[in-house]
Amino acid sequence: MKDKKMVHGGDYLSYYEKYNRMPLDYSENTSPLDMPNRIKEAIIESLELARRYPDPINRRLRNKLTEFISDFYACHVKSENIICGNGAADLIFRVCLAKKPKKALLMAPTFAEYEQALSLVDSEIDYYILEEKNNFKIDSKILNKLRDDKEHYDMIFICQPNNPTGILTERDVLVDLLKICKNKDTLLIVDECFMEFVDNYEDYSLFSEIYNYDSLFILKAFTKLYAMAGVRLGYGVSSDIKLIDDIRNAGQPWSVSVMAEYAGVQAIDENEYVEQVREIVLEEKIKIKAFLCNLGIKYIDSAANFILFKLDNNHIENFKDNTLKNGLMIRDCSNYIGLDEGWYRIAVKSKIENQEMMRIFKKCYEGEKYDS
Amino acid sequence: MKDKKMVHGGDYLSYYEKYNRMPLDYSENTSPLDMPNRIKEAIIESLELARRYPDPINRRLRNKLTEFISDFYACHVKSENIICGNGAADLIFRVCLAKKPKKALLMAPTFAEYEQALSLVDSEIDYYILEEKNNFKIDSKILNKLRDDKEHYDMIFICQPNNPTGILTERDVLVDLLKICKNKDTLLIVDECFMEFVDNYEDYSLFSEIYNYDSLFILKAFTKLYAMAGVRLGYGVSSDIKLIDDIRNAGQPWSVSVMAEYAGVQAIDENEYVEQVREIVLEEKIKIKAFLCNLGIKYIDSAANFILFKLDNNHIENFKDNTLKNGLMIRDCSNYIGLDEGWYRIAVKSKIENQEMMRIFKKCYEGEKYDS
Repeated sequence: MKDKKMVHGGDYLSYYEKYNRMPLDYSENTSPLDMPNRIKEAIIESLELARRYPDPINRRLRNKLTEFISDFYACHVKSENIICGNGAADLIFRVCLAKKPKKALLMAPTFAEYEQALSLVDSEIDYYILEEKNNFKIDSKILNKLRDDKEHYDMIFICQPNNPTGILTERDVLVDLLKICKNKDTLLIVDECFMEFVDNYEDYSLFSEIYNYDSLFILKAFTKLYAMAGVRLGYGVSSDIKLIDDIRNAGQPWSVSVMAEYAGVQAIDENEYVEQVREIVLEEKIKIKAFLCNLGIKYIDSAANFILFKLDNNHIENFKDNTLKNGLMIRDCSNYIGLDEGWYRIAVKSKIENQEMMRIFKKCYEGEKYDS
Repeated sequence: MKDKKMVHGGDYLSYYEKYNRMPLDYSENTSPLDMPNRIKEAIIESLELARRYPDPINRRLRNKLTEFISDFYACHVKSENIICGNGAADLIFRVCLAKKPKKALLMAPTFAEYEQALSLVDSEIDYYILEEKNNFKIDSKILNKLRDDKEHYDMIFICQPNNPTGILTERDVLVDLLKICKNKDTLLIVDECFMEFVDNYEDYSLFSEIYNYDSLFILKAFTKLYAMAGVRLGYGVSSDIKLIDDIRNAGQPWSVSVMAEYAGVQAIDENEYVEQVREIVLEEKIKIKAFLCNLGIKYIDSAANFILFKLDNNHIENFKDNTLKNGLMIRDCSNYIGLDEGWYRIAVKSKIENQEMMRIFKKCYEGEKYDS
């Protein structure tokens, strides 16, 4: 297992300790806007009850979540099929603890926390290496592999769209994968934490399959969409009530704080905020892609609110250090299984921040060019 | 494993659903006062940063905690020996996941979460039954058992003072236990979550032994002392840096929310509040004990902010239902291993609340008496 401290972006405090200033943090991928005021007000209101234990079964929030899923995905999910957690990361660990898979399949590259959680329960892990020449896309070849494969997998994680690539898997492929998983008694965990940033997300989400396949567990986060990373709130959905119960029992009863539950209930009414976020991300992503293209930098055509790109050998050596020295944090992705030196990820933020990011980026990149 | 939903007190929402009013909740044991304003203000201030990920290694809070431990226990603990969690319950699960003990020893009765966490990692559990005739006290007999015992325990949990009894273990016994644990390579987890409610707590805490025994892990909570149960914040202390690292890796990196970290930092300066809480608990506990004595009810002489008592057979049947119907929630302890029907626990709260509690209690108890 790689060093946990190095695995994630967003560690602006380490930056602050070293450089004595706040960075422009493009290493983490949350909403380009600030947390909505309504959520802040909900947290302040919640303080009246924060002396008491949280509701261990999050009644209010789960009821409200049925509305969110209905509004955004036109699916009628029952609250008994929802489990809330202390961020989606909490649920990644809980589902692994609940199932203790002997063997699991992970895509590579993908979000590092799946591997951490599987390692904690001593799962054997196979990696399905996504090909750069295919834009790291998961396509129907995976179906052939799984149909033929003599190996049995107890669990498969798919991140949709994938992090750090931002690439979507076609819905048909996932539905076929679900069929295979059903036959092979494999739990398919589909992490849709970045889904609302995708342009036509309804065409990709698997919510409508929840009641068709009890071997499906969908992971969701409030973290990214509502700029609530510090509040910690996520949830999971499955038609398998026993799975939901087992996940609930795979950890403490009070993992969701009173503040997080109140925040979540109010967040769900922020439809206008979500529309604004989506518009900004879609518009700004085009600009950043054009910017990378103009610099001749190879990037992956992300559907999410972040972009993975690769520097050529002439630029690798000092680029990251230079950006850091110039106040810009980007995510070095060379420690992902399936990626190597030169891969970086940047977030898509608001217009003004992106202008500043691109200014620093260009300076560091072209400075390098002239030096080399 | 008993049904998780039934294992704990504090579930006032289930009460509200059934009776359509808020109960006087004597089933959970937090501070008799409200959360200090300074903590509420800290949480409001933290909202400015709550869009970002929390600090995965809680630098500010761990530094500040060294002050708290120094102020209250005159021990100089280094911040590298502290790990923070999403409530002490989070750390109970994490330490079990980090160590995966093959075999563990639990006292009976004791806090239910130890058993839940051990069961999750498939530990075999032995129970050391505490004797009612000995006030459920852990005394030197446990040392003989452990010295003689051919069984090897990888982990032992001691709750000090114990929950639900409120009984303390003498410091000498614990230090001897530590010596045995050191020789036998057993991790001793001492849960001091209720310690500050104890009159002369400095004589009982094991903080001063932290650097003498690396097989010691002390658990602490903010929850109880500062009325922060809904905020979720706890910590653990050990001189074994590898243990601290393993616990950190036994779960997600961001388990402590931005709000909880800010709250904790400010809570530590609330020395006056703590003194007030201690005074109220010490004074009010005397009154409640006298009240139980006057009713002829057998109670355990608790050193903590709650009291365990036993009803005789004439009173068991309808007492709990009657208290519930009259707006009072108390903790039925019959589902603790080592206790049976008729054992209940009540909290020690503020003067006015306690008066109301005793009024309802007496009415329900004496009504019963006349009925029987």
